[in-house]
Amino acid sequence: MNLVVVGSVAFDSIETPFGARERILGGSATHAALAASFFTDVRVVAVVGEDFGKEQFAVFEGRGINTEDVERVAGARTFFWRGTYDFDLSMAHTLDTQLNVFADFRPKLSSPSLACTNLFLGNIAPELQFEVRRQYAESDYIALDSMNFWIESSKDALIRALETVDVVLLNDAEVRLLTGEPNLVRAARKVRDWGASKVVVKRGEYGAALYSEAGVFALPGYPLETVIDPTGAGDSFAGGFLGYLAAHTEQALTDEVYRRAMAYGSVMASFNVEEFGCERVQRLKLSEISERFDDFRKMTLLDEYPLEWLLAR
Amino acid sequence: MNLVVVGSVAFDSIETPFGARERILGGSATHAALAASFFTDVRVVAVVGEDFGKEQFAVFEGRGINTEDVERVAGARTFFWRGTYDFDLSMAHTLDTQLNVFADFRPKLSSPSLACTNLFLGNIAPELQFEVRRQYAESDYIALDSMNFWIESSKDALIRALETVDVVLLNDAEVRLLTGEPNLVRAARKVRDWGASKVVVKRGEYGAALYSEAGVFALPGYPLETVIDPTGAGDSFAGGFLGYLAAHTEQALTDEVYRRAMAYGSVMASFNVEEFGCERVQRLKLSEISERFDDFRKMTLLDEYPLEWLLAR
Repeated sequence: MNLVVVGSVAFDSIETPFGARERILGGSATHAALAASFFTDVRVVAVVGEDFGKEQFAVFEGRGINTEDVERVAGARTFFWRGTYDFDLSMAHTLDTQLNVFADFRPKLSSPSLACTNLFLGNIAPELQFEVRRQYAESDYIALDSMNFWIESSKDALIRALETVDVVLLNDAEVRLLTGEPNLVRAARKVRDWGASKVVVKRGEYGAALYSEAGVFALPGYPLETVIDPTGAGDSFAGGFLGYLAAHTEQALTDEVYRRAMAYGSVMASFNVEEFGCERVQRLKLSEISERFDDFRKMTLLDEYPLEWLLAR
Repeated sequence: MNLVVVGSVAFDSIETPFGARERILGGSATHAALAASFFTDVRVVAVVGEDFGKEQFAVFEGRGINTEDVERVAGARTFFWRGTYDFDLSMAHTLDTQLNVFADFRPKLSSPSLACTNLFLGNIAPELQFEVRRQYAESDYIALDSMNFWIESSKDALIRALETVDVVLLNDAEVRLLTGEPNLVRAARKVRDWGASKVVVKRGEYGAALYSEAGVFALPGYPLETVIDPTGAGDSFAGGFLGYLAAHTEQALTDEVYRRAMAYGSVMASFNVEEFGCERVQRLKLSEISERFDDFRKMTLLDEYPLEWLLAR
């Protein structure tokens, strides 16, 4: 019942049609770890600079997340991203990326991290993902996320990495780009043929689908009235999804457990976008999570239907 | 247990990355009527030209659809549309539109059509939709579809028409354009405030959502491996949805009935896109419909979850 999250920890400056924030806490590992922390014990493996201080570490600690493996480089600065969103919030436009300490990031895993049996390889260079994965046992549970940047620049390395994991999480544009297949059913099968037995395709406001040996499970997006900042939604999904799975790996990971994990991922993503950065998830309550899970169940509930009626026509 | 469908009947020439067809049977009323005919008795109100012959009428008759109110204008030609789709099939590009007889279409409803209590106002000029609607009783069940062309050219007339109906069906881009509201929850509420108690937002491959006094019901899209031609998918959805409702208006239209209607609409749309034009739906069997409905139910099934587990953490 633990999860190691490897990825980026960053400062984000974000502008959306609903406001702006300067240098708030962000990064793939941050969003994923915060979301997962509601379900399981979490350890973060990342790198930050000297500008990353007590205030930022306190956010992790506030959720009981272990930051022992967050390397702090003296005299250097933390990864910084500046982006803006249009009116419909569907796409981020990058205005500035300063890799800083992230440029030379080599994940250093302590013994307690290596002793964990659940690993999330967040969005970092595929070569690093592969290197970290190799330090874990074949039987450990490994998940991997990526993005269009790596698909375009390091496709072969990415495929090599995803051949060695249990579940791959990508959004629909990424899985199409990676496989060259516009049809998502075929695209997901291609990724599964490479090795990962399960593929989660995230579709932003349209929901998410899980492709596995059990078939397809799909969820619509949660109908939010207030969407302020989509940054980190995919990572929050991954955190909720993998956190729930990590809490259940000691039992069998049945199709029912996976379906619930998909719903928890969707729940965490839906909260994440309601405010800037991690603001909403930081002060989230378990009761709110369970209420929204229930909303999801009710929103998608379809009863058995009288087959006979139709066939009698 | 009957449905009147008013709309276009057309010849379509369609090219997609998977093939092409010349002058095949199409039009909003055609797709909707064929889909609805599996659930209820259907009457079509439309206009065609002299080029519309026995072969085309036979498609309607083959599904038991009454074409008494399909006006055939001598010496004139049927509405013709030529369009093409890109690789991802997400958008139709119109190459040619010849309104022909459709330019002067004034729906003429016979007494049997006027005696029906379920009416679908397919995608025609809002002024005509309003005129037809006025010939029905307040208590009759009226549904309306439209498209961006009418939203841009006849917005006021469209709003006047939709104020008088029970359910409005639009795709997500259309509902945003109509209301000027990018958030779908707010956009749907605005349409409901105008008068229609229910709003169905279609999202193509991403599924569909129903906004009503009962809240939101949402379905993901059916994961199709083979999509050949998306033309008429929205009308097929409307036909399946309204056909199922029409078969139940003598009972109470509960939230459960609406949910099933949404699933039947999705089922009919999913079959429609598997081949060109009406080819797939024409030879569809009821057993195939019921199987795919069941697939939908299984694909979205989320069990009750142990609240206690989460809250105990």
